[in-house]
Amino acid sequence: MKLVYLGLVMSCSLQAFALEALPKQVPIPADNPQNPVKVELGKALYFDPRLSIDGTVSCNSCHNVMASGEDNRPASVGVRGQRGGRTAPTVWNSAYNTVQFWDGRAASLEDQAKGPLTNPIEMGMPSHDAVMERINKLPGYVTMFKKAFPKDSNPVTIDNLAKAIASFERTLVTPDSPFDLYKRGNKKALSAAAVRGMKLVEEIGCTSCHTGANFNGEGFKMGEGHYQPFPQVPGSKYDRQYDLLSDKGRYEVTKNKEDMNKWRVPTWRNVALTAPYFHNGSVKTLDEAVRVMAKTQLDMDLTDAQVIDIVAFLESLTGKFPKITAPQLPMTVGTTLTPEK
Amino acid sequence: MKLVYLGLVMSCSLQAFALEALPKQVPIPADNPQNPVKVELGKALYFDPRLSIDGTVSCNSCHNVMASGEDNRPASVGVRGQRGGRTAPTVWNSAYNTVQFWDGRAASLEDQAKGPLTNPIEMGMPSHDAVMERINKLPGYVTMFKKAFPKDSNPVTIDNLAKAIASFERTLVTPDSPFDLYKRGNKKALSAAAVRGMKLVEEIGCTSCHTGANFNGEGFKMGEGHYQPFPQVPGSKYDRQYDLLSDKGRYEVTKNKEDMNKWRVPTWRNVALTAPYFHNGSVKTLDEAVRVMAKTQLDMDLTDAQVIDIVAFLESLTGKFPKITAPQLPMTVGTTLTPEK
Repeated sequence: MKLVYLGLVMSCSLQAFALEALPKQVPIPADNPQNPVKVELGKALYFDPRLSIDGTVSCNSCHNVMASGEDNRPASVGVRGQRGGRTAPTVWNSAYNTVQFWDGRAASLEDQAKGPLTNPIEMGMPSHDAVMERINKLPGYVTMFKKAFPKDSNPVTIDNLAKAIASFERTLVTPDSPFDLYKRGNKKALSAAAVRGMKLVEEIGCTSCHTGANFNGEGFKMGEGHYQPFPQVPGSKYDRQYDLLSDKGRYEVTKNKEDMNKWRVPTWRNVALTAPYFHNGSVKTLDEAVRVMAKTQLDMDLTDAQVIDIVAFLESLTGKFPKITAPQLPMTVGTTLTPEK
Repeated sequence: MKLVYLGLVMSCSLQAFALEALPKQVPIPADNPQNPVKVELGKALYFDPRLSIDGTVSCNSCHNVMASGEDNRPASVGVRGQRGGRTAPTVWNSAYNTVQFWDGRAASLEDQAKGPLTNPIEMGMPSHDAVMERINKLPGYVTMFKKAFPKDSNPVTIDNLAKAIASFERTLVTPDSPFDLYKRGNKKALSAAAVRGMKLVEEIGCTSCHTGANFNGEGFKMGEGHYQPFPQVPGSKYDRQYDLLSDKGRYEVTKNKEDMNKWRVPTWRNVALTAPYFHNGSVKTLDEAVRVMAKTQLDMDLTDAQVIDIVAFLESLTGKFPKITAPQLPMTVGTTLTPEK
């Protein structure tokens, strides 16, 4: 067991590991500085179901910011009732991820935002041009794009749409979890069980990967992915019970055998709210997810008491959710963009 | 034509007709007084997709308060990609309607709120008990119900759920449209075309039905419906072109031959934003909807100039939309209520 643990540490990073409070400032790319108008535009786009072919699916449908930043389903439902193959990752604190999607195939929030629009089982638009054709039919949006990107001669572009959505997403952070308060000095912020759980996840090696401010790796630059095999130790009963091997993960992107069944290390923040768990949403409860991870990644069988303590710690990572004013979406006057039955 | 017009007036109401500004106060039923906690509860429920069987459809999915209070589709999409048969009516100002649904089958907002939950092609819950079972698994909701209904020994009931949603809906009003400002004395609030349109709809008889503060009848008590045949004058090309006769309307509720193809008179407020039009959403644009109504209800062929003026008036009925803070929905911790693939 010790060998596996050391192996895992080696495969993750050679840096010192440390659990950190959430930084007050999210990373902002140089070519997409935040401004309030852009954030408001991004928010409207984020909530707008007319970015989907039949006007039924918005970003928020699957990444619900009124809840856990996802939809608490094993797989999301796109246009025409179609089911996706993977569970929706939470949008909360995604600004701290160095890569996006379960398989890390987007290097930034900007890149990510463009994907679901034209995915046939998600928002189903035939092309990015078709998306922008819709936007151009909404004068309210055209005005907002001009204000959000005042230096651009042609501001109404798919790249600017993605920049605006990413800017809004960079406001979706949940600071001040009990863990953050504890890290900042309030030693009463965590229960005794949570403190035991925190020590345990460090001792047994969970935090060799789930480390850094977003518990998904540290020292990685934006665009660089922190990938791990899941299962790290194949052969347990869980491989079959929860169908852990049929989705090849990052291999599906790179076709590189070294990436077989590898996944971006996901955040622990708000993990108590994001059931069901794992890329396929096959595990319904957090306690079972903890057992599965200990076995498949560290070859450990945790005691019930250990599971309870770790869950208490993970629950302490639920942060404070900011108030969001719902946007009033730009409207077409006297006609509709989604007239299909 | 004159005879038809008179007939229509007779069939509507014998009271004096008057276009009115939106009253500042919505009607509130004696057994469901407004209070802020109840409104907040109702707002959370309204936005909560877990009130649908698979966690994908909330009230707001089809009655979008970030937009026109509906979904700008001919028919809404419920769980599992199913299409409804009628277009979603706007929730904005529905507090002023004396009956709800296209066929008036609900006597109040409270009655209405209970319907879609268990409609198999809308939210698809097997029963109201199943809805309340979910609510009872969300401690945050249980606390909110207790605070919203402090005198009830068992506050977590389907009736209280409906009352809370109705209370939130009673806040969804759009005052201060250009028309309202005009009616209150600002004679510059309407364009010349809109003023001509306003006079025209009174002269030709549209306002014999589309009258009162919500333009859907006046002098009716809550629970009393204002129903009209559509088409009033069958036989025009539109009956077939827009499939106006196959849905029997209120007849489907009462099985009374007098109710054949009768419908609740819908509001004109924000009508410029609620395309496509009519119970089946078969007409894509407002100008065509005006032509169809003139022909099918008044046997009139409007000139293009008349249509333009009437549309200008109808556009002046777009009100001011209140800011809505998105709720943070009560969550389950460490598990999900919607684990089905």
